Amino acid sequence: MFHLESDYNNGAHEAVLRHLTETNDERTQSYGDDCFSDNARRLIREACEAPEAEVFFLTGGTQTNATILDCVLQSYEGVLCCDTAHINVHESGAVEFTGHKVIALPNQNGKLAAETLSQWLEAYFADETAEHMVRPGAVYLTFPTELGTLYSADELTALSQICHKYGLLLYIDGARLAYGLAASRDVTLPFLAQTADIFYIGGTKCGTLCGEAVVFPKGDIPKHMLSRIKRHGALLAKSRVVGVQFEALFSRLPADSPLAKETKGENQIIYLSIGRHAVELAMRLRRLFTEKLGYAPYIDSPTNQQFYIIPNSDLPSLREHIGFETWCPVSPTQTACRFVTSWATSTDEIDAIERLFL
Amino acid sequence: MFHLESDYNNGAHEAVLRHLTETNDERTQSYGDDCFSDNARRLIREACEAPEAEVFFLTGGTQTNATILDCVLQSYEGVLCCDTAHINVHESGAVEFTGHKVIALPNQNGKLAAETLSQWLEAYFADETAEHMVRPGAVYLTFPTELGTLYSADELTALSQICHKYGLLLYIDGARLAYGLAASRDVTLPFLAQTADIFYIGGTKCGTLCGEAVVFPKGDIPKHMLSRIKRHGALLAKSRVVGVQFEALFSRLPADSPLAKETKGENQIIYLSIGRHAVELAMRLRRLFTEKLGYAPYIDSPTNQQFYIIPNSDLPSLREHIGFETWCPVSPTQTACRFVTSWATSTDEIDAIERLFL
Amino acid sequence: MFHLESDYNNGAHEAVLRHLTETNDERTQSYGDDCFSDNARRLIREACEAPEAEVFFLTGGTQTNATILDCVLQSYEGVLCCDTAHINVHESGAVEFTGHKVIALPNQNGKLAAETLSQWLEAYFADETAEHMVRPGAVYLTFPTELGTLYSADELTALSQICHKYGLLLYIDGARLAYGLAASRDVTLPFLAQTADIFYIGGTKCGTLCGEAVVFPKGDIPKHMLSRIKRHGALLAKSRVVGVQFEALFSRLPADSPLAKETKGENQIIYLSIGRHAVELAMRLRRLFTEKLGYAPYIDSPTNQQFYIIPNSDLPSLREHIGFETWCPVSPTQTACRFVTSWATSTDEIDAIERLFL
Amino acid sequence: MFHLESDYNNGAHEAVLRHLTETNDERTQSYGDDCFSDNARRLIREACEAPEAEVFFLTGGTQTNATILDCVLQSYEGVLCCDTAHINVHESGAVEFTGHKVIALPNQNGKLAAETLSQWLEAYFADETAEHMVRPGAVYLTFPTELGTLYSADELTALSQICHKYGLLLYIDGARLAYGLAASRDVTLPFLAQTADIFYIGGTKCGTLCGEAVVFPKGDIPKHMLSRIKRHGALLAKSRVVGVQFEALFSRLPADSPLAKETKGENQIIYLSIGRHAVELAMRLRRLFTEKLGYAPYIDSPTNQQFYIIPNSDLPSLREHIGFETWCPVSPTQTACRFVTSWATSTDEIDAIERLFL
Repeated sequence: MFHLESDYNNGAHEAVLRHLTETNDERTQSYGDDCFSDNARRLIREACEAPEAEVFFLTGGTQTNATILDCVLQSYEGVLCCDTAHINVHESGAVEFTGHKVIALPNQNGKLAAETLSQWLEAYFADETAEHMVRPGAVYLTFPTELGTLYSADELTALSQICHKYGLLLYIDGARLAYGLAASRDVTLPFLAQTADIFYIGGTKCGTLCGEAVVFPKGDIPKHMLSRIKRHGALLAKSRVVGVQFEALFSRLPADSPLAKETKGENQIIYLSIGRHAVELAMRLRRLFTEKLGYAPYIDSPTNQQFYIIPNSDLPSLREHIGFETWCPVSPTQTACRFVTSWATSTDEIDAIERLFL
Repeated sequence: MFHLESDYNNGAHEAVLRHLTETNDERTQSYGDDCFSDNARRLIREACEAPEAEVFFLTGGTQTNATILDCVLQSYEGVLCCDTAHINVHESGAVEFTGHKVIALPNQNGKLAAETLSQWLEAYFADETAEHMVRPGAVYLTFPTELGTLYSADELTALSQICHKYGLLLYIDGARLAYGLAASRDVTLPFLAQTADIFYIGGTKCGTLCGEAVVFPKGDIPKHMLSRIKRHGALLAKSRVVGVQFEALFSRLPADSPLAKETKGENQIIYLSIGRHAVELAMRLRRLFTEKLGYAPYIDSPTNQQFYIIPNSDLPSLREHIGFETWCPVSPTQTACRFVTSWATSTDEIDAIERLFL
Repeated sequence: MFHLESDYNNGAHEAVLRHLTETNDERTQSYGDDCFSDNARRLIREACEAPEAEVFFLTGGTQTNATILDCVLQSYEGVLCCDTAHINVHESGAVEFTGHKVIALPNQNGKLAAETLSQWLEAYFADETAEHMVRPGAVYLTFPTELGTLYSADELTALSQICHKYGLLLYIDGARLAYGLAASRDVTLPFLAQTADIFYIGGTKCGTLCGEAVVFPKGDIPKHMLSRIKRHGALLAKSRVVGVQFEALFSRLPADSPLAKETKGENQIIYLSIGRHAVELAMRLRRLFTEKLGYAPYIDSPTNQQFYIIPNSDLPSLREHIGFETWCPVSPTQTACRFVTSWATSTDEIDAIERLFL
Repeated sequence: MFHLESDYNNGAHEAVLRHLTETNDERTQSYGDDCFSDNARRLIREACEAPEAEVFFLTGGTQTNATILDCVLQSYEGVLCCDTAHINVHESGAVEFTGHKVIALPNQNGKLAAETLSQWLEAYFADETAEHMVRPGAVYLTFPTELGTLYSADELTALSQICHKYGLLLYIDGARLAYGLAASRDVTLPFLAQTADIFYIGGTKCGTLCGEAVVFPKGDIPKHMLSRIKRHGALLAKSRVVGVQFEALFSRLPADSPLAKETKGENQIIYLSIGRHAVELAMRLRRLFTEKLGYAPYIDSPTNQQFYIIPNSDLPSLREHIGFETWCPVSPTQTACRFVTSWATSTDEIDAIERLFL
């Protein structure tokens, strides 16, 4: 049985686990002041080429979105996003729990189009009743999106320009950032740091046991962030837990490691190599599903989440060998299904899956 | 240098770390449905002799208090506690953030006296303007308290009876529960399960990297707990992280382990042996500080947090060898200081500290 | 100059003002316990043929929606409505401020179609990830809608049945209820009382200085409503203010009053006669605008809000005589405009407007 | 039967009612933009000698406190007050509902002593764990206090200086301000405008049907106040309702009015004369109760709320003639009782009460 259900079903990437073990006996400060978190912050600043950046470590994605958006929004502001956005659909109303409206606009391939955003903002600011409406304070994007799609650098730049024209913050949710960076032709950590006002580097789905790293690239954070984060129940006493893990992920890959060889990633940051590995395997799956098996993509995803339209009659035999999620019915006889690779998917597994359909 | 600053400055107890490592490659379900969390729940139910208990794993103490109190309180209800309570002082207003008043009553040795509670409730329910006041919905206690003191079984029973007389829930914060159980003559996990409506078994300060286990001993949980917890940003995708750690802590100690020998804890639950170990060392410190060095206790604590009144002139030399926290000034020439042992304090360290003062 | 800008630009209906004056010197209880509120509640129960009904008086529409929805929703529940709903657009996020998501579905003529609701709910309850989504707890409708349109009795019945099939509450916002009741062929107060779980009888736009009457027709109110309402800052100390006004509005019209004659409303409840008066005048406007002036309706409204598409070239001359609101541009040369009658619009004014265009 | 139960049991002061009537047919703008509110704001600015002041009209006291404090506090800030403060005791947790902690310090005669405040703040800002505690953002006082007592000008100045030293806002709740101003030797509206950062001029208990006027004397209001207020459900569509009432209260008393004669208040602002009238009557009651009847004051109040310790055996006969509230038991045989005068208490009533005890 091969497991392609999701990217958060395993423990931690070996480098993460190893670093947790080798640092276990060191005594540190707490509440974000520990040396591991400090060093992880330094490594992230370097990788982002953002020497002024402020970095905060939180535990999970929903917590990060709700906490950080609440920290940066004024009380009367809401957050704009597309209707498929994670904060709009799958966070049990965590953003609204903090008192802010999620204002959902129609998506295009899981993305918020600059045109859509621009038109909405123009209409809002021209509306005489705007003060009776929720004022937009930030735009939320996911990179990659919930459907595995990617914004190009040009698209992000356009969205960023619109945000800044209207005084909004651009916030990017990078729960699966490693996979997005690996699949993108032009979006890099330094590009994100220049383009977004806030973004987070996802850990949970990209190799940690838990933890996400929130980056304010320009260092312009709200006052009293420690109090704000604690008030949301999001401050770990033993902050090293996440710090150690991100220190591992933002270290360089040893030249002789299998991952370095496989992804030609000598001297590469482990976080980036994890993404390349998973995307490379996802692309092999894609060729198998489309070229060999003739399944149409449900959506054209270049990242580690792959969606195909499978005839219902094929599902039982597929399930015998592969674990995957059904996404939604497409027709009475066809179902869109999701297949996910991750840092934990091995080359051997994909080899074996390919052999299944020889 | 010996470190007695706090009980959350190290990584994880060796049994916890080992179990994280040995389970790392197993694939599991997520969001609380993983097999490790399931088994940890089973072990906790057994240890509590509460077969009906429902158990939830959260990440940290403040998160647990705010999330669970918000889950069980009606919107218009507040929570009663004593003025030194962690939720009243040191959680950055996390409970109020969820809309509930923390109603603080005077403490006695860091504890809420049954008499104090009883009088307040009698007055509240006799007050004709009660509907204009925040209705009490729960009582919050810490065991051990923030000052290291302990409620006796009789005290807890009395508080529980008052709660139930007035229809309030009794919630016990066990951030340092291992140390409390070890030091108490009569309070056990089964006793807590019979006496409290909700309590949590602290992990972060008692051997895990992160994580607390909330127990509803009677199984009477609010509906849709998963949604409620996620809405607070407190649901881990990779829930196994905490599940694995509590599975380790609630396993039995191997007979040949050093801890088993030291605490005569053969076949003992690791969580309990951790508490005994730290309390045993704390009692050795106590004898050293009071009998040998002649320092008066600032408060009489039987648990792993020890507080002594130290002449300011002694502080520099003490600091050369021992890391500790100053708690508060007691007089112009004396300071109350806190010395904390934990699972991470070794017998060797205490031996060496004793030798310092020979 | 004739004023058709809105229905909240005047003081109070003469019967309301008179009753405020004649009761001014009587001393009463407060916080909802006054005899005027009690009597107003009795009159409303009678008018609704709902002897079990519980009635609460609040001050304004947004306050009422946010307070009552927060009172009846579970913490993790949201409220469904159509995208044009007042709570979704024009309440500055007051519902989200209380922590609840407003889940907006596409509207049809300003209404939520039963089919739209039904399909959404079916999909929600079939979704395996439903626990990660905001659970719907209530459906919010406006009667009449923000665009002046009306649900038929059949449409409301269908929506009500869907709500109850899925365990949702049906909440109807009657900010302009008087006008809706007057224009509807089949929706009456007793019908609303049988069909909705909660509805409010609008005062501010229908003749009071301020105040709305919330009706729970079956009397099944949440516990501790006084505390809940006060917690929202919505409890008036001098509750008689709204009580007196609703006592006036739900009294019978004297047979010799001009309104009784005009609306053939002898022995009629004043609130209902107010609606008939305004709708009668709105229908005269409608004939004038469509038949005489040839303007197309922007939306087909049978109530006191009338919307017409006016050539931009006609706007200046129209504005010389009539005050009205521009609603939205319809084409580069045409604008949708809103003309509103109310209890304060006189027959003389409409006579005069008609003469303008002879 | 003479009614001294409270100051919110009657309708409105005759000047208020008259003005509501005489302005009823004028058409105005809404949501705070109406001409009556504009003029009332101008009159208040003049009375306060604060030409830069911004003034907002809300409906009731609890609403005002919760809305305005939430508007001016940062999300992570709380409000300091004394333990008897209205926001701490009798607002059903409305401030906490908005997410802010009410931090209660011990009172002295219902007042917050400068010394108490100063010591607390010094300790807070010296505390190394301050970031884990709720940061104080404002100080809340009532003038007069809930017990009828008054701060002197010196006391208010001292409190104000402490606030500003630590960067806190000074907010004064003037629910009964008319009575406080009348009884104070040195506190005036201009003094309050110079000393407080925000204060509100109470209407409900001082002559209006409903409504309170919030004054920001320096005009330094948070951005987007209309949205903020609406989000709290506190924005009246028909804002004129409160505007008209405050326009009446801040008009000058006609020279031939009975009130002018009685309070020697020719050319006086009605609001101030209302206070003088009620306090004059309260002082007559005081002489009666203490000198004639020999009852000891429960607290020494110079304002319209009078508290006396009455032997329980006297209560039945007293109740035959006078309506009043029992406050609290003082001993097994004595009860503290509250007697309240107001704008609605007539000189005739007090004459008659005095005659009762001749």
